[in-house]
Amino acid sequence: MSSDLYEAIFRRRDVRAEFTGDPIGDETLERILIAAHAAPSVGNSQPWDFVLVRDEGTRGQFQEHVRSERETFAASLEGERAETFSRIKVEGIMESTLGIVVTYDSERGGPAVLGRHAIADAGLYSSCLAIQNLWLAATAEGLGLGWVSFYREEYLQELLGIPSRIRPVAWLCLGPVTQLQEVPDLERHGWRSKRPLVDAIHLDRYREVSREA
Amino acid sequence: MSSDLYEAIFRRRDVRAEFTGDPIGDETLERILIAAHAAPSVGNSQPWDFVLVRDEGTRGQFQEHVRSERETFAASLEGERAETFSRIKVEGIMESTLGIVVTYDSERGGPAVLGRHAIADAGLYSSCLAIQNLWLAATAEGLGLGWVSFYREEYLQELLGIPSRIRPVAWLCLGPVTQLQEVPDLERHGWRSKRPLVDAIHLDRYREVSREA
Repeated sequence: MSSDLYEAIFRRRDVRAEFTGDPIGDETLERILIAAHAAPSVGNSQPWDFVLVRDEGTRGQFQEHVRSERETFAASLEGERAETFSRIKVEGIMESTLGIVVTYDSERGGPAVLGRHAIADAGLYSSCLAIQNLWLAATAEGLGLGWVSFYREEYLQELLGIPSRIRPVAWLCLGPVTQLQEVPDLERHGWRSKRPLVDAIHLDRYREVSREA
Repeated sequence: MSSDLYEAIFRRRDVRAEFTGDPIGDETLERILIAAHAAPSVGNSQPWDFVLVRDEGTRGQFQEHVRSERETFAASLEGERAETFSRIKVEGIMESTLGIVVTYDSERGGPAVLGRHAIADAGLYSSCLAIQNLWLAATAEGLGLGWVSFYREEYLQELLGIPSRIRPVAWLCLGPVTQLQEVPDLERHGWRSKRPLVDAIHLDRYREVSREA
């Protein structure tokens, strides 16, 4: 298993269809969570938590909810977009080995969080940095991970007993996979292709780029 | 130079005082930006942009703004907190080689961004994932990076000509360093120490942990 950083960055995929459901070794899972927990955070607040969801009943309920949100999104589309979307799988909740729900607690490290007085969302950003560490570590360990975002935060709070002050940031499906796709799902299925890096780089001032769709 | 993932994750620091101001090779900077641009994004929207700020005048103005925001935060503190904060450096804007401002464009990939209809912030999260890729790549390249968040978003939009629909997410100071500290600044200076991983892990349901400060 290679844990080269650049290799992990480029091999990493957002997995839906390739989970095998095989178990993950305790030490592997621990390395992945230690990596997530080593992320930077505003004011060293470490505002994240990780809810490991293995319970089949809970996952089944969440999957039902995600299906209904999928339908809500599908109903907003027309023509080619609707047809393309119909071919895209948006979650691997039951097929993956477990779900990891990453949350954000805005009261952690308070009341005065160093670096957050001017930007309230800076704490939320920290939970995202932990997710990317987790994702890269999972990839380096040969596992797949898929971020599910077809859900309402209130639903997930209710389902997992998450207090209302704490926001769920992601449901991550994690587990061994048959393979990681070379081309991301949304490109393979014709949903949206990549933007050239050069378009994203600006020198000293932001320049308006021709507005891509 | 080692680019081991776990080593980058654990060596990574939020740098303020150790920048040398030495130049960064073009190829090194390119590898770092390619890594950032390879981050996952909701609906493959790639909503980030990178404004590379080398201009000394612009950086000087931003530093002045950050100083005044530092004073605003300092004025909210009392006693030991005020004293501890007074010893902490919050930015290396002029000492670093360049600033990289990472932004979020909510209209990129619109109007129907796959995976964002139920969670408006999912796009913002994508820009954060790009930042963590960038940070780890910088660390693997032997550079230091420091995220400055003592600023008002409107000020930075005005300073860099960023349209009002686009949010600045971070000002990242980047450059060669004399060293990366072993212990993070906020721990060394007694601002806040780390939380044990075990407190952050929950099984199947969120359990209320004793509320740490």
